[in-house]
Amino acid sequence: MNKAAGHKRWVIADGYIPPGSTGNSRPLVSHDAICILNSGDQDAHIEVTIFFADREPAGPYRMTVEALRTKHVRFNEFTDPEPVPHDTDYASVIDSNVPVVVQHTRLDSRQPALALMSTIAFPV
Amino acid sequence: MNKAAGHKRWVIADGYIPPGSTGNSRPLVSHDAICILNSGDQDAHIEVTIFFADREPAGPYRMTVEALRTKHVRFNEFTDPEPVPHDTDYASVIDSNVPVVVQHTRLDSRQPALALMSTIAFPV
Amino acid sequence: MNKAAGHKRWVIADGYIPPGSTGNSRPLVSHDAICILNSGDQDAHIEVTIFFADREPAGPYRMTVEALRTKHVRFNEFTDPEPVPHDTDYASVIDSNVPVVVQHTRLDSRQPALALMSTIAFPV
Amino acid sequence: MNKAAGHKRWVIADGYIPPGSTGNSRPLVSHDAICILNSGDQDAHIEVTIFFADREPAGPYRMTVEALRTKHVRFNEFTDPEPVPHDTDYASVIDSNVPVVVQHTRLDSRQPALALMSTIAFPV
Repeated sequence: MNKAAGHKRWVIADGYIPPGSTGNSRPLVSHDAICILNSGDQDAHIEVTIFFADREPAGPYRMTVEALRTKHVRFNEFTDPEPVPHDTDYASVIDSNVPVVVQHTRLDSRQPALALMSTIAFPV
Repeated sequence: MNKAAGHKRWVIADGYIPPGSTGNSRPLVSHDAICILNSGDQDAHIEVTIFFADREPAGPYRMTVEALRTKHVRFNEFTDPEPVPHDTDYASVIDSNVPVVVQHTRLDSRQPALALMSTIAFPV
Repeated sequence: MNKAAGHKRWVIADGYIPPGSTGNSRPLVSHDAICILNSGDQDAHIEVTIFFADREPAGPYRMTVEALRTKHVRFNEFTDPEPVPHDTDYASVIDSNVPVVVQHTRLDSRQPALALMSTIAFPV
Repeated sequence: MNKAAGHKRWVIADGYIPPGSTGNSRPLVSHDAICILNSGDQDAHIEVTIFFADREPAGPYRMTVEALRTKHVRFNEFTDPEPVPHDTDYASVIDSNVPVVVQHTRLDSRQPALALMSTIAFPV
């Protein structure tokens, strides 16, 4: 059964990387992430563009999500073409050449117990 | 009044079972769950397929949500055809033979106070 | 300007009232809530039906959201026709005679720091 | 590539400004926020209207999100035409002259560890 599903453009209006962590391992480090599912049978070539409050957009950040795979990536681990600044408001547009589904999740461990939030990105 | 409502395919791009808990009872154990409502008058036969970053998909995991009933199930309690690994990124596609509504909720109690996140799954 | 907006039927698949609280006042008591906005100029007559895992649905629970008003109500404060059990999985369908918007929010204060989750309900 | 995306009217049914904080800096003060992305090439002129349980709506609160920019604003920092009361249920309608995307996020730091929630606003 073909499970290809989703949209080719998604938007996340609330981007923010908390500027500290109480966690002591990668899973518990504060992070802002996108989870992409490519349930189709063609590789998805993804381009992420990042928008700011007071400067020109950054990107594109390029990645591939292979057919029938999911990739969970953290904005705080983006490096090319430039890192995403911490403690700074941003937003993102995610473009794919094939339909995918995108969910946005943040883990904030600045204070002694972590906080989580998640929402489906907005498809356009 | 007939309240049948929803879609036959839903996607959750962010799947993750936190690898520990501070809670000491089933309600407070870290979990990743799907909540399915079948508000129609026919039983819903559900198939869940799980996608990973670096291996072939797993499943289908089969379950039934009877007419006019809701079922809240945890990925960490799936066993057939195989358990879902903890501390591993995944995503899921939920297929039903009749319209249902699916919501995704995670409770993370790794640190000394629990964190919650929830979002409607994405209908396709 | 007429801001009437929304849908007449909404679904929340994940209903759950946490069975305890560390908060010591109504705002910090664990709760599961629906927030309804009626931005139109006619009163909204609302009926909530609650679905369970293993019994017949309960309701309808009736309430009115006046024109140009919002109402945030807690499932744990429903009494008529019957209270909603705590520590029990449920789901709900919200019907209105005029378009409204419904958001679902839970505050869980079982452990020593509260947790929050929220999602737009699913419109059908 | 033109990335203009979104809708001209969005609704957030759950508005609430927690009445206290344990954080000691602006990022950790309890807040209720809207994140707006204008990925198009025309400035977005935004009007926010706030609805209450028991009084007439307030607003419009006016702001501009420039072309290719994002703005994350907090209801608790609104002042004109009047501040938004704390510890009070409200809802909001966000109107724009050009398509934008709106996400709703709350940070609640009343108790000794913060809680987060986020959801895409509802487009109409």
